[in-house]
Amino acid sequence: MSHTHTESLAHLMEQFCKLPGIGPRTAERLAYHVLQQPAEQALELAQAIQQVKTRIRHCSRCYNLSEQELCDICRDERRDHSTLCVVEQPNDLISLEETGLCDWGYHVLLGHLAPLDGVTPDDLTIDALVKRVEKEGISEVVMATNPNLDGDGTALYICSLLSHSKVKISRLARGLPSGGSIEYANKSILSDAIIGRIPM
Amino acid sequence: MSHTHTESLAHLMEQFCKLPGIGPRTAERLAYHVLQQPAEQALELAQAIQQVKTRIRHCSRCYNLSEQELCDICRDERRDHSTLCVVEQPNDLISLEETGLCDWGYHVLLGHLAPLDGVTPDDLTIDALVKRVEKEGISEVVMATNPNLDGDGTALYICSLLSHSKVKISRLARGLPSGGSIEYANKSILSDAIIGRIPM
Repeated sequence: MSHTHTESLAHLMEQFCKLPGIGPRTAERLAYHVLQQPAEQALELAQAIQQVKTRIRHCSRCYNLSEQELCDICRDERRDHSTLCVVEQPNDLISLEETGLCDWGYHVLLGHLAPLDGVTPDDLTIDALVKRVEKEGISEVVMATNPNLDGDGTALYICSLLSHSKVKISRLARGLPSGGSIEYANKSILSDAIIGRIPM
Repeated sequence: MSHTHTESLAHLMEQFCKLPGIGPRTAERLAYHVLQQPAEQALELAQAIQQVKTRIRHCSRCYNLSEQELCDICRDERRDHSTLCVVEQPNDLISLEETGLCDWGYHVLLGHLAPLDGVTPDDLTIDALVKRVEKEGISEVVMATNPNLDGDGTALYICSLLSHSKVKISRLARGLPSGGSIEYANKSILSDAIIGRIPM
C-alpha cells in the first residue's frame, strides 16, 4: 500500500466518519483542522464530548434532558406546573419553548408508540405521565406529539388512559403552515384546514 | 431566556461550531448524536482527538507528518532515496503517493514563499532541503510545488539555491487536465499545453 495518513490521523478520520452527515472528505478536513489548531482548543472539544456523555441524564420527573436530578423547567417555580405539555423528544420541547408562548411544565415520552417496530407503552414514559396527572393535581394536558400517524396514535392512546380522570386534554392546532402556500399544501393539510376553519 | 439545551450540550455544540464547515444546525445534530451513541464510541472520538494532538509531529528528516522520529517513507528502505520530491504540504505528498508512481523520498516545505505575507525562506524547511541534497548524495530533485504563482516562485528560488550543485532538477508537467475540456480550459492552461506539446 502507498503511504497514507499517520495512524492517529487515520483513526480520527474514521471516528469523524461515524458521525451523521460526515463523509470521508469532510472527515479528512476536520482531522487536519484538529491537527493544526492549538492543543487547548482540541482538548476542549475532546472534553466537551466526554462531559456530554457523563453529565447528562433524564430529569427524574419529566424525562427532559438534565444535568441535575430535576431539569431547569421542573425547578422553575414561576411556571404554571398545573398544565403539562406532552412531547415525544427533548428537542420538541426546545422548539416549543422557542415560541416564548409556553409557560407550562412538560412530560417527555422519549418516543412514540410503534407496535410494528416493537415499541409498546412500557418503552415510553406513559406510566409516569399517568401517575403525575393523578399526584400533581394537573388541570390540563396539552398533547404535542408529532402531527403524523405515530404521534396521533400515541396521543389517542394516552387520551384513553386519562379519560377516567377529570383532567382537561387538548392538542395543538392543525392547519395550513404559516408562510406556506395553498397550492403546495397536500390533501391532509388542506383537510385539517377546512375542517378546523374558524370564524373571522 | 426560554429553556434551551443543557450546559454540556450547548458547550459541545459551540465546540463543534468552531470546526470548518460546521454550522449551528449541524453542530446540534452532531451533539445529539454524541449524546445518544454508546459511551464507548463517544470516548473513542474524544481520545482520537487527543491522540492526534499528542502523537503527531514532523519527521526529523523530511518534515512529513509522523508518529515517530522518522516517517514511514524515510524508514522505507525499498524506496529510491536518491530522488527527492519537494512538496508544499503533507497532503500534497499523500495525493502524489495515491498515483502509485512515486518510488522516491520527499521533502515537505511546510508552505510556500509569500514575501507580502511575511513568509520568508527561514519560515520554510528550505535550508534543511539544501543540506539534504549535499549530504545524502541526491541525484534528482523533483519540484512538486503547487502550479500557481506562489508555488512556482518557491520552486524557482530553490532551483537557484541548488544551481551550484550538480543535482538534476525537474518539475511536474503542465498541460490540459485529463478529463477536462479545451472549451473550459483557461488561457494559462492552454498556453502550458501549447508550449509543452509533444510529438505523437
